[in-house]
Amino acid sequence: MAKLSPSSRVIHALDVDSLEKGLEIVEKVSPYVDGIKVSYTLLYQHGISSFEAICENTSLPVIADLKLADIPAIVKRLSEKVLEAGVDGVIVHGFCGRDVVEACIEEAEKRGAMVFVVAELSNPGAVEYMKGMGERIARMALEAGAYGVIAPATRPDSIARIRRVVGEEMVIISPGVGVQGAEVGDAILAGADYEVVGRLIYQAPDPAEAAKKIAEAIRKKASS
Amino acid sequence: MAKLSPSSRVIHALDVDSLEKGLEIVEKVSPYVDGIKVSYTLLYQHGISSFEAICENTSLPVIADLKLADIPAIVKRLSEKVLEAGVDGVIVHGFCGRDVVEACIEEAEKRGAMVFVVAELSNPGAVEYMKGMGERIARMALEAGAYGVIAPATRPDSIARIRRVVGEEMVIISPGVGVQGAEVGDAILAGADYEVVGRLIYQAPDPAEAAKKIAEAIRKKASS
Repeated sequence: MAKLSPSSRVIHALDVDSLEKGLEIVEKVSPYVDGIKVSYTLLYQHGISSFEAICENTSLPVIADLKLADIPAIVKRLSEKVLEAGVDGVIVHGFCGRDVVEACIEEAEKRGAMVFVVAELSNPGAVEYMKGMGERIARMALEAGAYGVIAPATRPDSIARIRRVVGEEMVIISPGVGVQGAEVGDAILAGADYEVVGRLIYQAPDPAEAAKKIAEAIRKKASS
Repeated sequence: MAKLSPSSRVIHALDVDSLEKGLEIVEKVSPYVDGIKVSYTLLYQHGISSFEAICENTSLPVIADLKLADIPAIVKRLSEKVLEAGVDGVIVHGFCGRDVVEACIEEAEKRGAMVFVVAELSNPGAVEYMKGMGERIARMALEAGAYGVIAPATRPDSIARIRRVVGEEMVIISPGVGVQGAEVGDAILAGADYEVVGRLIYQAPDPAEAAKKIAEAIRKKASS
């Protein structure tokens, strides 16, 4: 199982529907990103075999962003399925409780795969019911043995607070860059390890060039 | 679009992996249940075309239990996809905020489909971070124009409190019956409109007979 290793500090969110297009983009951007995040868009269209195809066509770690948010028995079953497809990491929601996170970790550990726990979503509504929960969830994820947490690039203060909770023991990945409003590099400055970038890359006329530029912008900002 | 109409008060959670088996069970249980809930198990294996196949093979309302829990742009896109497949209802998590629920409702309204908002999950861990949130989420779902909410059969007191919030304007459906611990009929007694039953039916040697008996048990309990 491939683990994340920081170089460009960019994870590409491959939220495309077409597997053909997905494979094309993966081939182009792989030299410039540290990981590929696959999601429901591919799964809806092609089922789990699309994740298999992506995994077979890149040496980068592939993270299945299913944002699992169900009871433990279902999360265990779905985690097993997706890990069987060969992905290196799975994303589970923390708000569902420790039993759900543990069900996911149990399956991942059998295969040495990574589990990322969503501590806080990046949309404005995410703080309506979950205000202040991010740190509590991050602490639980740490104790449960997760590999990383997900914190919103749209709220750098949340990233900084979550970093204080998890120390250097956990990886923080941050979506919300670009179309959602966060500037490239801001999440890294606030303490994240990787920025998750989707539309800025897969909607660009030249995805490889876009990924390269984003990685450069992050490098510049991080060293300034 | 078919809407739920109470007769047996049972919705079958068709959490099987095989579409062939799924279609077989749907044919057998359709006379004894009020709706079919399809989920990720089918989607992982076969993609969205499996939902199309189920919809084409039953006149009952089909609810896609994707427990959507992402940012509005993604939830909008996934809702659109799954509604295009012909399902009559979609399930979205409420904890993600009103913007996420509204994104789902916006897509559903275009097709006259139902949106169900998860107010509270049925697992023990669900109250770790979300204690007391169920009623707030139910109120938001009502204001946003959702068709129904989901409340846990494993916590009848939560169902009763949520019923007080939503009055008779919304449908309450309750998973957690059977293997998860709630007794058949208890959620209905507490104020739910439908009980969601999965394994007790699809794992039974005779799923039709199992569905029939559950419906009878509910009828008996509700009239006692």
